[in-house]
Amino acid sequence: MATLPSVSYSITVRLELDGHGTAVGSLTNAVEHVGGVITALDVAAAGHERIRIDVTCAARDTDHAQAIVDALGALEGVVVHKVSDRTFLMHLGGKIEMASKVPLRNRDELSMAYTPGVARVAQAVAANPEDARRLTIKRNSVAVVTDGSAVLGLGNVGPEAAMPVMEGKAALFKRFADIDAWPISLDTQDVAEIVRTVQVLSPGFGGINLEDISAPRCFEVEERLRELLDIPVFHDDQHGTAIVVLAALKNALRVVEKRLGEVRIAMSGAGAAGTAILKLLMHAGAKDVIVCDIHGAIHEGREDLDSNLGWIASNTNPAGYSGDLKEAVSGADVFIGVSAPNVLGGEDIAEMNEGAIIFALANPDPEVDPEVAHLHASVVATGRSDYPNQINNVLVFPGFFRGLLDAQSHKVDSDMMVAAADALADVVTADEIGPHYIIPSVFHTDLSQRVASAVRDVVVREQGGRGGVAR
Amino acid sequence: MATLPSVSYSITVRLELDGHGTAVGSLTNAVEHVGGVITALDVAAAGHERIRIDVTCAARDTDHAQAIVDALGALEGVVVHKVSDRTFLMHLGGKIEMASKVPLRNRDELSMAYTPGVARVAQAVAANPEDARRLTIKRNSVAVVTDGSAVLGLGNVGPEAAMPVMEGKAALFKRFADIDAWPISLDTQDVAEIVRTVQVLSPGFGGINLEDISAPRCFEVEERLRELLDIPVFHDDQHGTAIVVLAALKNALRVVEKRLGEVRIAMSGAGAAGTAILKLLMHAGAKDVIVCDIHGAIHEGREDLDSNLGWIASNTNPAGYSGDLKEAVSGADVFIGVSAPNVLGGEDIAEMNEGAIIFALANPDPEVDPEVAHLHASVVATGRSDYPNQINNVLVFPGFFRGLLDAQSHKVDSDMMVAAADALADVVTADEIGPHYIIPSVFHTDLSQRVASAVRDVVVREQGGRGGVAR
Repeated sequence: MATLPSVSYSITVRLELDGHGTAVGSLTNAVEHVGGVITALDVAAAGHERIRIDVTCAARDTDHAQAIVDALGALEGVVVHKVSDRTFLMHLGGKIEMASKVPLRNRDELSMAYTPGVARVAQAVAANPEDARRLTIKRNSVAVVTDGSAVLGLGNVGPEAAMPVMEGKAALFKRFADIDAWPISLDTQDVAEIVRTVQVLSPGFGGINLEDISAPRCFEVEERLRELLDIPVFHDDQHGTAIVVLAALKNALRVVEKRLGEVRIAMSGAGAAGTAILKLLMHAGAKDVIVCDIHGAIHEGREDLDSNLGWIASNTNPAGYSGDLKEAVSGADVFIGVSAPNVLGGEDIAEMNEGAIIFALANPDPEVDPEVAHLHASVVATGRSDYPNQINNVLVFPGFFRGLLDAQSHKVDSDMMVAAADALADVVTADEIGPHYIIPSVFHTDLSQRVASAVRDVVVREQGGRGGVAR
Repeated sequence: MATLPSVSYSITVRLELDGHGTAVGSLTNAVEHVGGVITALDVAAAGHERIRIDVTCAARDTDHAQAIVDALGALEGVVVHKVSDRTFLMHLGGKIEMASKVPLRNRDELSMAYTPGVARVAQAVAANPEDARRLTIKRNSVAVVTDGSAVLGLGNVGPEAAMPVMEGKAALFKRFADIDAWPISLDTQDVAEIVRTVQVLSPGFGGINLEDISAPRCFEVEERLRELLDIPVFHDDQHGTAIVVLAALKNALRVVEKRLGEVRIAMSGAGAAGTAILKLLMHAGAKDVIVCDIHGAIHEGREDLDSNLGWIASNTNPAGYSGDLKEAVSGADVFIGVSAPNVLGGEDIAEMNEGAIIFALANPDPEVDPEVAHLHASVVATGRSDYPNQINNVLVFPGFFRGLLDAQSHKVDSDMMVAAADALADVVTADEIGPHYIIPSVFHTDLSQRVASAVRDVVVREQGGRGGVAR
């Protein structure tokens, strides 16, 4: 499970060196010797004696990038000038912008888009507030809201540091579903304040995507906002993950020819994602689930249960099993981990049932080495892009919100999520499905349209046939 | 002062009529007969007997548009099909959108803009929060915040109905200063809640533009936010107006060869705009000002003074003049109205000093008919686009924020506003200036760059030479 050099850590090093014949060859050798991968060599300027070259190469991490720069600098006659980092270059000035959809070239256009013409539009919305979805950006806009408390795997980095992630999320909304999302990073981590702030700022948005808010606060924030608002509220870390896991599990079960209602599932992790996965799997028909956290299996006899763990204890593990994760995994058909690196070994996977399914989703280091797991399991999925079967929220949240917005949904429910998972699973055809292909690529052509369409159908059915307007 | 037909009220009427020779002529006559102006005739489909025509024409208002449609429908052989309103058509789906500045075509680009690459950028900002202005949208983004309580002249229409106006504002920010503004319409009108909400949502923004919040609440909202936030907070209805008035007044005084410190100024209106104008004029050197509200001159002897009117009473009108507006205007050099229609007549303007300057800014109907005022005054300005010398906030807010953002200013002060007014006034050259040209057009080429540059210089000077980074 060695980490490979990645373009997400790509650096460009400007060098000056002697212009003799073997100089470039010595660069390539030096980078490869320390395990880097050269992806581009650009000669920036060449003189009689000296040439300047921009060497772009992929590294594993900060230390590795430094090792590459050091290796280049140690070459005789080479002077290292500037080192730039492609990822940072891409972020300069931020990743998203606002664009006007209307021309403002002359007085007439100004008079329609702004005063005095806009006054009549404002009056029309005042007279009929539902027209906000026709005459304003509300019909296509989503607030991406975080408090910066659980950003990626980085933890509580705060609202400013969360912005690059929220901007990326907004860019993905646009790229995959043509949704206008704007990031709102909150300078509070108090549940009541988060709830009230989102409620107060919500009128201009057609949906709220909560993001990277730590458990257990995220449960209460979402639950209270769903009660207060008449637009859909969706915590992607919970439900986006749950939908993709359900879709992937459905296809994995097709591969091993088992049924969701009959398999035994052992889970590791009872945080935001774990709880949402559990609930959605049960809503979809899973019956036999044991959830473990760092203290072992969650059962009714434990005395450290908060309201979330209490719900899990009451609704899973009917036999009251009280052992640790390794024992829970023994004899299980499915393992789903959203917890911590390397909590299981190959010997644990070997104890699972025939045709075992492993979803080891801890990032960047999974619960079990996927290569080791493959020796004993039939299907292995991770959260990583450098292995097959990546469980990636990008597969679902854009299309999911597209469907909600198009149907002008006032809420999100589990039926919509199951429908999204079914649509996502069905993108993989019977001809294509296999142990290494249970879930499509995020770049699959009509992925988000298919998810959107499935979600829209559920909303329209639930609203008694009253759908939204066509886009 | 008849209102003229305007494209801000332009309708397109689809008609079917007999295809004989004089049909089109009868349409034109009918529209002109009721005072409409035909701006386009498009034949949509022509058959042997009947033709379909889209008639686009400018109207004065809703009733007038209906009268035009009725006049067309009354013609023999004409059937009116669909009537569409160009302004409403322009607003369908909203006027702004979010756009990604980074390509997301393949896995590599995804890995840099989002996980895993984005994690390093988030960590960099966490380690050095000032980097948010380099690596996130904060450096170029402004929240356009309203509570919908005083939208244009429409009053308290609420947050949804305010959205078309806020979107228009955001579009203008982009059009004139390349700023990424996003509208935030608040579902509360409580001062403390507005303040706290804006404070909590502020980390991702480089500035706050307050908009259309009613007086006197807007004073407290702005004052408290300026204390709490380390980014500039600017209530455009107050200060944008004040800056443009100061610029226009400087040039009007050049026309009549008088000095700001020596003229007597009578003002009508002590609301948000009036108070801001007063304070900025005094900061720029005005000495002799009397402000009137609906109860007459504001003086220390009045018993109905709130804290704002109390400040005005203590700082203006030293002679304690206690009469009405008409008496205050008598003998004055300058009248500035930000109040109500038709509070003065030609006979009042005739009582002013030689070389009188009239800024009658109530919209759409000014404090005095500008055509009547012209009979007695040297310079007349209004808020309307169909007279010369339009006092229009669009002249200043885009460039003002451009300067603040470029200098990474943490605040807004009166020196920056005076500098902006000077830069705006100076756009009109000595060769160009005259009674009908004291203020440039909003489409003047380098207007916002000149305002931005003046503001940036003041910020840099105040920060002891530490400016922002170049864009």
